[in-house]
Amino acid sequence: MPPSPVITFTSDFGSREPYVGAVKGAILSACPGVPIIDITHDIGPHDLLEASYVVASTYAYFPTRTVHLVVVDPTVGSGRRAIIASNETHFFVAPDNGVLSLVFAKEPPTIVVSIEADHYFRKPVSPTFHGRDVFGPVVGWLAKGTDIEHFGPVIQDYARFALPALKLLASNRVEGVILHIDRFGNVITNISPQDVRKLAGRDFRPAVFRLGEKEIKAHRAFYSESSVDELFSIIGGNGYYELAARGKPAARILEARRGAKIELEIQ
Amino acid sequence: MPPSPVITFTSDFGSREPYVGAVKGAILSACPGVPIIDITHDIGPHDLLEASYVVASTYAYFPTRTVHLVVVDPTVGSGRRAIIASNETHFFVAPDNGVLSLVFAKEPPTIVVSIEADHYFRKPVSPTFHGRDVFGPVVGWLAKGTDIEHFGPVIQDYARFALPALKLLASNRVEGVILHIDRFGNVITNISPQDVRKLAGRDFRPAVFRLGEKEIKAHRAFYSESSVDELFSIIGGNGYYELAARGKPAARILEARRGAKIELEIQ
Amino acid sequence: MPPSPVITFTSDFGSREPYVGAVKGAILSACPGVPIIDITHDIGPHDLLEASYVVASTYAYFPTRTVHLVVVDPTVGSGRRAIIASNETHFFVAPDNGVLSLVFAKEPPTIVVSIEADHYFRKPVSPTFHGRDVFGPVVGWLAKGTDIEHFGPVIQDYARFALPALKLLASNRVEGVILHIDRFGNVITNISPQDVRKLAGRDFRPAVFRLGEKEIKAHRAFYSESSVDELFSIIGGNGYYELAARGKPAARILEARRGAKIELEIQ
Repeated sequence: MPPSPVITFTSDFGSREPYVGAVKGAILSACPGVPIIDITHDIGPHDLLEASYVVASTYAYFPTRTVHLVVVDPTVGSGRRAIIASNETHFFVAPDNGVLSLVFAKEPPTIVVSIEADHYFRKPVSPTFHGRDVFGPVVGWLAKGTDIEHFGPVIQDYARFALPALKLLASNRVEGVILHIDRFGNVITNISPQDVRKLAGRDFRPAVFRLGEKEIKAHRAFYSESSVDELFSIIGGNGYYELAARGKPAARILEARRGAKIELEIQ
Repeated sequence: MPPSPVITFTSDFGSREPYVGAVKGAILSACPGVPIIDITHDIGPHDLLEASYVVASTYAYFPTRTVHLVVVDPTVGSGRRAIIASNETHFFVAPDNGVLSLVFAKEPPTIVVSIEADHYFRKPVSPTFHGRDVFGPVVGWLAKGTDIEHFGPVIQDYARFALPALKLLASNRVEGVILHIDRFGNVITNISPQDVRKLAGRDFRPAVFRLGEKEIKAHRAFYSESSVDELFSIIGGNGYYELAARGKPAARILEARRGAKIELEIQ
Repeated sequence: MPPSPVITFTSDFGSREPYVGAVKGAILSACPGVPIIDITHDIGPHDLLEASYVVASTYAYFPTRTVHLVVVDPTVGSGRRAIIASNETHFFVAPDNGVLSLVFAKEPPTIVVSIEADHYFRKPVSPTFHGRDVFGPVVGWLAKGTDIEHFGPVIQDYARFALPALKLLASNRVEGVILHIDRFGNVITNISPQDVRKLAGRDFRPAVFRLGEKEIKAHRAFYSESSVDELFSIIGGNGYYELAARGKPAARILEARRGAKIELEIQ
């Protein structure tokens, strides 16, 4: 007997609305007893990049065969497709609006189908709530073991948005962006040591991070290694450089905003 | 073997307090392993109408035999009764304070019992925390299959509060109220096409929604069908008309407040 | 067959970040199918006392053998140890930073081990995210039935912080502190009737609570027993005196702050 499948659920539905509950009901009606793990429902309304970041940062830690449901769906009811993607070990179910772009950048899918087999849907399908009437039942049937190809035709032209890439500004300077600012005020960049090594073609140590006028010159292995009040860089749990400050929100001190450019000078 | 029962849990306990955890512990102590699905714990403190709206919008999507626990309980410890209601397919457990009114309006209960069999309770019963000491154990025993009539006598005079009803102002004008404003700023009314058809005695199309001085004349089938910045009406996932604005919180533009009157002119 | 073990999870990771999801994935990868019950992830960042309060207020209501995971970990990656503590009926897994102090004050552990057996960890272990790489896998293996002593050596010098104690100011006056202010604005003290009886050496009734200049002279058994607008004391679900106001946040009226001193005069 294989381990029970698990469903994870990420959305921008908020924690105060009936939407999350209705989707969970629809999932359990299709697949009674399947465990549903909330990732978060506090994604900013319609914020595809934030959802993509959260799913890309969590999926790989779940067991093989986990079904990851992602509902951030500003164009629900329009002609936008719904997809199931698989990379052999995990399944992803989402609107075809690019919300899985960061996942696909880490691990390209081996198959993507357009969800069209409407006998799996809850009827009538509300044009404003596919989470409950399309996605919920589909992840339930998928968790039950229904073959991915039963849900619709294989497609190649699924949506991906252009992701901010690292730029080599000079032989010792790399430019990235701020990917996320977390609850602790840590400023998470899209710059990883591996990517810098590849881009610079050599081993290196970080010298200075620059964010606008501000410079961060201290580099630590863990948060409490720093002195109080010090701004420093650190390699976070995702493998990216973060800017942090001990016991303070670095983002506030740095006036950091998601999407802002950040420069790393190496030595 | 029937599918495992599931318990849903809605409360105003908030997401930062120990209260939700203590209730879940009490449920699991009575019925080890039963899945507990959070609907929301961010109901406004003591907001019976909001809780009623959320439960009425979610319960029907869960499997048959689901037990729905609703704890919004401003008069805990007083003489107010606690009830179990059933409509043959679902069970509801709540204080007898009207919090199930919208559920009962959709589907009248076929049986309601007053919870009095205190051998099911956790002892001593705190007069300030029946969620943990009364409701938690009771839903656990109910999920285990204990017959509803074992918990106390059948009653008829359970609490319901008067719900805002649609009014026919003229042969082509209907008045309703704002039921809820959601996270996206959608303004959800209590006006459904079915109810208007019944009240007006004919088929119709919406002409204008009026909220104070403001008029909404566009009507769309799905959110992204609208033009940017346009205010429009739409039929939401619950089957009620909503006022929305593409990518903006309509409630803020309309200065909408829950409970405010809203008028629909039909053609 | 014993009842399935359950894992509870308390943290300061917030509800919008990928951190909680990643830890749950790591738990399920070690122990597929184990139920994970969220207590809260909205503990104030690095607030050890709040986490301690929440865990001490919830753990005892869970079934025997429950594993309680508590991750509030400002010194992650440093030399601070990680521990598993057991009091025969429950297991607690946390950084060794005092976050379990209130639990230990209620029920001293019968065994505490320092987690050192790194073959249970997820590799490589991120120095900034032990929740995912150390604690998640360890609670999974513990829930699976791995003996506590397999995780590392028994220790005696685990961290506990000094807890605010009741002080006898006079034969009829006791001083305590505010432990917590909850979502309803209830002001929860560390003063219980049992402790006052022990300290005063006699039975008593509360006469006046004093918080700065303010006096609270009404004492009620349940919230709605009070008159509207009245400030009153009540014995809360934890067995401690609380200051409350009917339908209003008492904390705001009293300008109460956690940690502030509070005096009880008895008669």
